Amino acid sequence: MRIAVLGVGLIGGSIALAARERLAAEVAGWDPAKPALSAAVRRGALGRAAGSVAAAVAGADAVFCAAPVARLPGLVAEALAAAGPECVVTDVGSTKRAVVEAFADPRFVGGHPLAGAETAGVAHARADLFDAATWYLTPREATSGVLYERLHRLLRGIGAQPAAIDADTHDRVLAAVSHLPHVLANVLVAQAAATLRAGGERLPATGPSFRDATRVAGAPSAIWTDIYLANRDALLRELDGTLERLQAVRGALADGDPEAITDWNDAAAEDRRTLLESHLAGEDVFQLRASVPNQPGVVARIALELGRAGVNIADMALSPAPDMSEGVIALWIAGRGSAERAAALIGGLGFPVAGP
Amino acid sequence: MRIAVLGVGLIGGSIALAARERLAAEVAGWDPAKPALSAAVRRGALGRAAGSVAAAVAGADAVFCAAPVARLPGLVAEALAAAGPECVVTDVGSTKRAVVEAFADPRFVGGHPLAGAETAGVAHARADLFDAATWYLTPREATSGVLYERLHRLLRGIGAQPAAIDADTHDRVLAAVSHLPHVLANVLVAQAAATLRAGGERLPATGPSFRDATRVAGAPSAIWTDIYLANRDALLRELDGTLERLQAVRGALADGDPEAITDWNDAAAEDRRTLLESHLAGEDVFQLRASVPNQPGVVARIALELGRAGVNIADMALSPAPDMSEGVIALWIAGRGSAERAAALIGGLGFPVAGP
Repeated sequence: MRIAVLGVGLIGGSIALAARERLAAEVAGWDPAKPALSAAVRRGALGRAAGSVAAAVAGADAVFCAAPVARLPGLVAEALAAAGPECVVTDVGSTKRAVVEAFADPRFVGGHPLAGAETAGVAHARADLFDAATWYLTPREATSGVLYERLHRLLRGIGAQPAAIDADTHDRVLAAVSHLPHVLANVLVAQAAATLRAGGERLPATGPSFRDATRVAGAPSAIWTDIYLANRDALLRELDGTLERLQAVRGALADGDPEAITDWNDAAAEDRRTLLESHLAGEDVFQLRASVPNQPGVVARIALELGRAGVNIADMALSPAPDMSEGVIALWIAGRGSAERAAALIGGLGFPVAGP
Repeated sequence: MRIAVLGVGLIGGSIALAARERLAAEVAGWDPAKPALSAAVRRGALGRAAGSVAAAVAGADAVFCAAPVARLPGLVAEALAAAGPECVVTDVGSTKRAVVEAFADPRFVGGHPLAGAETAGVAHARADLFDAATWYLTPREATSGVLYERLHRLLRGIGAQPAAIDADTHDRVLAAVSHLPHVLANVLVAQAAATLRAGGERLPATGPSFRDATRVAGAPSAIWTDIYLANRDALLRELDGTLERLQAVRGALADGDPEAITDWNDAAAEDRRTLLESHLAGEDVFQLRASVPNQPGVVARIALELGRAGVNIADMALSPAPDMSEGVIALWIAGRGSAERAAALIGGLGFPVAGP
């Protein structure tokens, strides 16, 4: 397999390393910053450093665009222009609506790995960065099922867990679970620094709760200013909700109301359990086989339908019938309940399904 | 050495385990909940389960009061009533003004280890819980220097790094670096849960930033309602500052102002560096020796003066002169710069000092 990585920072470099180490892929890379490109070659992430996007993409089976969000539409357009008809092009941007709306090309699938680190740059790239990480994919009706499956398989191969989601939902969810936490980390670190400076003390020791809460504070502006602005509407809604909630707890505290504070705290404990523990169960994997017409949009519809219902596709495989008129899509789903729900959902879309 | 631990949850249980394993101490324990006491004995944390505070404290050299903040004044009073004249009594409460103001007894030193976990209860107690953790101590003028040194040494022996701080400063600092992060974690988890529920989706996968930011959300109400209320005034000030900062970034976002967002984000990065990296340097340790009169309050004054200046006392030892009229306090300080500042500060208090 031949892969092109456009942008070889932490994420692009880690994709390249993982593809070489785990899939024995040939990896070509390009980066607007020549020193980054050289570093990626020295790091062993690239087999070939290309002098242009077109040179990197030539002959590739899959292209990863790993640039800051604001530069993605331009980069994806360049990649699609250079890519062959059987090449899947994806990106790793943290917001998805703008780039996904810009391309109805069957070869493009928006993507977003939920992985990162306190570091940046290819020097910190790791082949295991995506192990067990959710990797959101945002297929559209126009997306080629064959190419979607290839990308899904490739991501599984580098350790990630792909999950389909539509771009609108992705951006709304990420505003709540990623962009808002980044804003709060920034505000917290600024507030604490101001308080400590105002006291004239040297900086005191801080405990683990502060370190954890501020781990992502001041994430690189070159990436994050774009993300905040690209998802401005959704983030503003989350900020308004947050301001209301903070005012409410401020009121309970000012009133010295132990019952209100206990109720508020207990509710947070319950919310946290629900949010964080719903994905932890280790479960058996069940196979489903659905017969589907060989037409555009089918795989995207199934992936999105299951994604919406919270059913993760652990793995998938497509087998077209010899006359290409229809095919079978095999899906592996963790947990009998989820597999049964998946079967019902696929049946509801009008496709015959066998298993679990 | 004989130690009494009153309250054998995660913190009390870990103190007991560490004291037995590392200091070969005899540890007696008491807890208002009999099942917790039995569990602590089974866990190997206690050599003896006592039926009352007085029975646990009898013959002890040091007593740790490890109860929720609101119950500490009562428990410390009981412990002091039962303790001998050479026994140091301390507590582990997360807010310090109330308990410290309540006792001018030379045997009492307020304390607060910056350690914890996502768990509670003696079942999760660990002998290494305090390794390298800052353990704030809040001596007053009345505090016995001999007993302060004994406690300091004991805490070093179980792996902690004691740091002196006055109770007012402690509570203000902790409002910023601990209580505010807990409030924000609660608000964040509630906001995200509401957003996801409103969309009617199943819960999506969340990334590491969300897990880190909400690690302390919904910490046990039995402990935290008391903490929030005990430090209400300081926490309200932090909340008001936080609300202002959130409104400001909301404004920059609503304006779509990339420069304002970049400046704000860069400032957060700088604040984070300053706050978190100031304590990371590994440095040589220098010894100071100061001659001090053998009178109450001297050790507390020195410890607090250095604590205020951000100078950590890595270790300390007191050697009284034979006639007890004066003594030498030896201090070990990490970093030549800090050691020189410590010498100047101690000189400024009027005590002759040698080294570094």
